[in-house]
Amino acid sequence: MEKKFAVGVDFGTLTGRTVLIETDTGREIAAADFSYPHGMMQDYLPDDETKLNSGWALQDPQDYLDVLSHTIPEVLRKSGVGKEQIVGLGIAFASNTILPVKQDGTPLCFLPEYKKEPHTYVKSWKHLAAREYAERIKQLHIDKDESNFGMMCAVSPEWMLPKAWQMAEEAPEIYRETDYFLEAADWIVWQLTGQLTRNHCMAVKALWKNETGYPKGASLKLLHPLLEDFAERKLFGKVLETGTCAGGLSEKWSRLTGLCAETSVAVGNVDAYVAIPAVGICETGVMLMTMGTATWDVLLSEKRCEIPGICSLPKDSVMPGYYALEAGQSCVGDHFSWFVKNCVPESYYREAAAFDMNIHQLLRSKAEKQLPGESGLLALDWWNGNRSVLGDLDLTGMMVGLNLFTRPEEIYRAMIEGTAYGTRMIIETLREHGVEIKSLYAAGGIAAKDAFMMQIYADVTNMEIKISAAAETSAFGAAMSGAVAAGCYMDMTACARAVGKVKAHIYRPNPQNAKRYDLLFEEYKKLHHYFGQGENDVMKRLLERKNEAVKLSMAETRN
Amino acid sequence: MEKKFAVGVDFGTLTGRTVLIETDTGREIAAADFSYPHGMMQDYLPDDETKLNSGWALQDPQDYLDVLSHTIPEVLRKSGVGKEQIVGLGIAFASNTILPVKQDGTPLCFLPEYKKEPHTYVKSWKHLAAREYAERIKQLHIDKDESNFGMMCAVSPEWMLPKAWQMAEEAPEIYRETDYFLEAADWIVWQLTGQLTRNHCMAVKALWKNETGYPKGASLKLLHPLLEDFAERKLFGKVLETGTCAGGLSEKWSRLTGLCAETSVAVGNVDAYVAIPAVGICETGVMLMTMGTATWDVLLSEKRCEIPGICSLPKDSVMPGYYALEAGQSCVGDHFSWFVKNCVPESYYREAAAFDMNIHQLLRSKAEKQLPGESGLLALDWWNGNRSVLGDLDLTGMMVGLNLFTRPEEIYRAMIEGTAYGTRMIIETLREHGVEIKSLYAAGGIAAKDAFMMQIYADVTNMEIKISAAAETSAFGAAMSGAVAAGCYMDMTACARAVGKVKAHIYRPNPQNAKRYDLLFEEYKKLHHYFGQGENDVMKRLLERKNEAVKLSMAETRN
Repeated sequence: MEKKFAVGVDFGTLTGRTVLIETDTGREIAAADFSYPHGMMQDYLPDDETKLNSGWALQDPQDYLDVLSHTIPEVLRKSGVGKEQIVGLGIAFASNTILPVKQDGTPLCFLPEYKKEPHTYVKSWKHLAAREYAERIKQLHIDKDESNFGMMCAVSPEWMLPKAWQMAEEAPEIYRETDYFLEAADWIVWQLTGQLTRNHCMAVKALWKNETGYPKGASLKLLHPLLEDFAERKLFGKVLETGTCAGGLSEKWSRLTGLCAETSVAVGNVDAYVAIPAVGICETGVMLMTMGTATWDVLLSEKRCEIPGICSLPKDSVMPGYYALEAGQSCVGDHFSWFVKNCVPESYYREAAAFDMNIHQLLRSKAEKQLPGESGLLALDWWNGNRSVLGDLDLTGMMVGLNLFTRPEEIYRAMIEGTAYGTRMIIETLREHGVEIKSLYAAGGIAAKDAFMMQIYADVTNMEIKISAAAETSAFGAAMSGAVAAGCYMDMTACARAVGKVKAHIYRPNPQNAKRYDLLFEEYKKLHHYFGQGENDVMKRLLERKNEAVKLSMAETRN
Repeated sequence: MEKKFAVGVDFGTLTGRTVLIETDTGREIAAADFSYPHGMMQDYLPDDETKLNSGWALQDPQDYLDVLSHTIPEVLRKSGVGKEQIVGLGIAFASNTILPVKQDGTPLCFLPEYKKEPHTYVKSWKHLAAREYAERIKQLHIDKDESNFGMMCAVSPEWMLPKAWQMAEEAPEIYRETDYFLEAADWIVWQLTGQLTRNHCMAVKALWKNETGYPKGASLKLLHPLLEDFAERKLFGKVLETGTCAGGLSEKWSRLTGLCAETSVAVGNVDAYVAIPAVGICETGVMLMTMGTATWDVLLSEKRCEIPGICSLPKDSVMPGYYALEAGQSCVGDHFSWFVKNCVPESYYREAAAFDMNIHQLLRSKAEKQLPGESGLLALDWWNGNRSVLGDLDLTGMMVGLNLFTRPEEIYRAMIEGTAYGTRMIIETLREHGVEIKSLYAAGGIAAKDAFMMQIYADVTNMEIKISAAAETSAFGAAMSGAVAAGCYMDMTACARAVGKVKAHIYRPNPQNAKRYDLLFEEYKKLHHYFGQGENDVMKRLLERKNEAVKLSMAETRN
């Protein structure tokens, strides 16, 4: 029998990554990536004139198309595989990445008259400027009554509804001109196939419910009059499950990618969800951490759960037959990027250069000589708020134990440990609510490259950690969904059992370190409660002072 | 009448500074300084072989003699003043700086057989290795029963008794060979005059009491059997008040300094105390902050007070007729040195070089653009523990409000503000105990040079701050004590009225900023109580973890 192949494309925060796999073995044949020419726009629009407000984070959808037209021909070329052997194409995306389009699929920002209108661009998952709307939705409890979500899980500013509401409120004329709001993943599938569909995983974060669909217009009208028709008209499109075929390739995209028109294009998926089959998880009790700038945790479950700060995702949204629990930490790798940019002295850079290391390697080589607790430092890892279990973006970072002998590598290690305590907090909260967690899996850049950090996570959680064996786990998972869409497997579970993979090396906790971290975690927990759960809301009050001062400072600048 | 002059020498932490003044006007005619060739020994003895334990900070007394023989001839030469016109010489010293000597005044460390014995060197005020003894004294309440101190004021590890006890415990044979323990200031006066005397200001910190002298042998024996004869024999020497003449110059020192044998040498004094007359304070209600690596606060008082963390010094010890209150912050400028060494990125150093600034100037130029509260940061300024009002060396630094946009200059400013809140905490504690504080004076390197920081102090305390006009306030005050010893003035009060001086420029609080800082200080206070007063002893527990880990790590290294 002739070998079959599938292509997966994972759209990350700044780069698209593409992999070509053999469908029956999962062997990765070729890979390519392409960085978004416009990157993340946080200060100005591409005209370099239109200033963006604080918290905005936009993208240009042309960049996504460029990823497809650059990387798919590249993996074809590199692999030497004939295009007729490529049976499936799958898309994974960092959610929630939302754009407004016209009825024919044209993004509003492609229209010349809207080039200078920020609201017409893609609002990435990093866009936090819709947070006040998320807060207001929380207060209205629409999620409780009308959605699939546990009432304990707040609506995130990243989601569809706060972003649409922001536009309705701040740019009603653009809202009216928007025919559809789309997840970027669904927009790409539409471009590729000519069919407008929506994927189940992301629809869920537009408050879509398996039984009753989206929230009713009457509820949405409570938020803003313009939103009355939001679900009915602007979220138009059939919701399909992972692994479903959305269609074949359009003639245009067959030409641009070099694939056959017969290639089955799977509906899109969330990058962190599609990693679950990619590492072969098809049962409960195993939590997968996708660790990069932030961390997403996903865990299959046999039942819905009401757990603070943790989303209970509807049945079949992640893997067939299961509910899923989703938690996350809004700042993980970002801590270390911030740190090396702002807090590491020149002498360390010189030393790194002398040893031919990058700065992270140098800091790790120094930090790994220390025992747990040796620095005397403890950090609350909230440099970008706390997603789970507190669901509070107004929380900030804290460090205690500093003295005149504290060295940069000690602060660095304390920040790593802080994120590990954050993970343990999630695990303990799940367990307190009766969720069994037997072992941990990890994917993402940190899991692949950072043995030092992974060992700390094993020690802090006192659990074994298995690491994804795919070079790019979400691209691999996306390719798997392409293979399923093409009929190579009955469903994602069958595909996961066949080709899901982890590395042979397992991180195992060091019992001595685990004991020491038990004591330190108790301290973390105490401070977590004190600063995060109302004992002392100093972080919020400092933020109020900050906002007042920023406003005043801006007013002074204008005068 | 022929003009008269006096010389003052201030022995700081790393440098001796000498000034020659005109006695009737206080005009500073010439100045010189000399850095200690051996600096502060914290890692090794001068043999570069004998390793010192953590917390040790030793000096070589030869360095002090070198200061005298270098700087006094230099000011004479520079000033062109005839030696017979120089009537007085005064000494100020960073207290408590303690050395063991033989009966003839020879420091034990000068003897060849003791060159490799750390306990024979000078234990500087930075020597913290005697802290467990200070703790044990506190527990025995010897200070309460037998000393002049308020029972609320802990014995500091810097003081005479913990340092002597450390030696009795850890090197009993050296203790037995020590004929006298001396404050370095008294040892220098002894060297200069050939007369062994002790100054009142420092004797007080050897628990000397105006009415009953030192603690009795029976109490001291409770600490350690060897200490029974400590006060009676090893603290031998008459206690004299500031401004008293200890004697003329010995022939040797007349030759080495170039001064006449008739020059009156005043008894020594504490650098922060002698700054009180130097800025012209001779009344209650005015607190002087001597601000450098650490800050010492001194305030005259009409009565003894029992205030937590604040020493009530006996009558006449600082200025005739008054009690005095002494508070302090164990880490002020040291914060910023630590910060620029460990936490400031290379790009900032390049920028500073491009603007021809030093790194502190660059950070200040960036930080001063911000309004109070604008960074959202708040720090507890305990990088070196808390002296007043908590009297707890086991406390550590804390910072809250960090996020991914936090910049180095914001952390830097938050650390400055933290020290200012620490000062306000001292002021509020004094006021709560009925002590009136009408205005602030400041001396020391920070007061002289750092307008940005002084303005923050004015805003945070909502008080006016006057700045010492002397180039080196403590050296100037020392010269004043020389003038009093020579009979140019009846007492230090008269001298202070005549020549004490502050700058014309006064730092006045900005009412808007003061209001903002009121709110922020409330947050500081809450965290001060939480971390510092037993609500959550996490800082101490982290220190225990640290000590355990360090011990284990050292044991592992040995094996």
